[in-house]
Amino acid sequence: MTIILYDIPSPFPNKAFSFNTWKARFALNYKGLPYKTEWVEFPDIEALCKKLGIAPTEPKPTSTGGGPLYTLPAIYDPATNTYISESLRIASYLDATYPSTPSLFPHNTQGVQAGFCDAFKAHVSPIFRFGIPQLAGTLSPRSAAYVRQTREEWLGAPIDKILPHGEEAKEVWAKVQAAWGKADEWYALNGGRGVFLMGEKPCFADLLVASFLIWVKTIYGEDDQKWKDLASWNGGRWKRLLDGLEKYSQVV
Amino acid sequence: MTIILYDIPSPFPNKAFSFNTWKARFALNYKGLPYKTEWVEFPDIEALCKKLGIAPTEPKPTSTGGGPLYTLPAIYDPATNTYISESLRIASYLDATYPSTPSLFPHNTQGVQAGFCDAFKAHVSPIFRFGIPQLAGTLSPRSAAYVRQTREEWLGAPIDKILPHGEEAKEVWAKVQAAWGKADEWYALNGGRGVFLMGEKPCFADLLVASFLIWVKTIYGEDDQKWKDLASWNGGRWKRLLDGLEKYSQVV
Repeated sequence: MTIILYDIPSPFPNKAFSFNTWKARFALNYKGLPYKTEWVEFPDIEALCKKLGIAPTEPKPTSTGGGPLYTLPAIYDPATNTYISESLRIASYLDATYPSTPSLFPHNTQGVQAGFCDAFKAHVSPIFRFGIPQLAGTLSPRSAAYVRQTREEWLGAPIDKILPHGEEAKEVWAKVQAAWGKADEWYALNGGRGVFLMGEKPCFADLLVASFLIWVKTIYGEDDQKWKDLASWNGGRWKRLLDGLEKYSQVV
Repeated sequence: MTIILYDIPSPFPNKAFSFNTWKARFALNYKGLPYKTEWVEFPDIEALCKKLGIAPTEPKPTSTGGGPLYTLPAIYDPATNTYISESLRIASYLDATYPSTPSLFPHNTQGVQAGFCDAFKAHVSPIFRFGIPQLAGTLSPRSAAYVRQTREEWLGAPIDKILPHGEEAKEVWAKVQAAWGKADEWYALNGGRGVFLMGEKPCFADLLVASFLIWVKTIYGEDDQKWKDLASWNGGRWKRLLDGLEKYSQVV
């Protein structure tokens, strides 16, 4: 029985780029569960989810009229005839349904990891001022137009206006660096017991952090200064984290 | 050998009120370690720490001239002749030094709990617009003046101006309720395995959340609508959490 992972394609090698869908992909790879990818362009996500009965994950911003928002990742598991969306819910489902595979929430840490993920995303969010315009310039024309429109509605400003320049770019990038510095403090509290947050084995929160790393590496490329910065910050911790997950980074 | 806990007194019964020092007090109580309290008024904290060689915990806001900021809780452990400040560092020290006592960071969860705590504090922070003015009205005149001055410097506005009124009070209180609702989502992810975040036993993050609860209950009193609201939100989850820690709530 092969699970289906619904992911969003990009023109980059391996197609996968989204930090949201990467969490689910990492989870499937880490658990060693057989799956294949179905690629869904951004503008087709809502129609697909409605057709298959995949639940929306959050409300649309009220400025855009509200209503349910459909997002990927989603999976279909033929073993249980179940569709599930949202990466944390997918990981929870996989932990519960396949208890003999490596756990992403060992020792009942699902709630505490959810809080960690909330904090990490809040700190690192200034990175979107760079990443979203960069992304919009690289997707297929249909998807790029969709990203441009929806993100502009969410942000209340055209994408070109959120990209910082000159001194402001330095200031925003310094905030991004501070966010990874904060995460470095948290990781350092594992007492040097491995590259992962809880020690020797990855947990869901590691997959979230690594998904941001792989997103930057993918949309900017390894030769870009942004990725080079990230790979060098905090004594190379983030490159080591991604290297530690390399065997779970395949796209199938 | 009796540990000394340095705490800040208030005119309320049991004196203890600070959500920061409550974390350390809960930790000592939960671990069953013998300790006694030395009460230190707010304006005396810096001089005491400098005299004893207790490390500052963070920088003062640059608007106040910067420099090191000395805060409580701090402990002195005569068994190791060690002074330690900052509640998470104290809890880590106690876990490491007394490994046969119940662990606050089981399964190497120190980093992930630190992230959770960061997220919880960020969400719940609108509560300070009520709590700090309320507090300033109740401490000893010296301490109240100190809180009034330092918090005004930090907030960039007189304390009386941060207390919301009328419609704004409703809006800010709704943000506080939303914060506890977010925490409720995280707690619910423990799968109903007890009242605590990681299940049947409390962890450090529970002590942090409970310290905010006990702070509100103390500075407003049980008959105040603010405490009644908190105790009723999320199906009574927060009252149950505090009740679950009642046997670790003694002030000695």
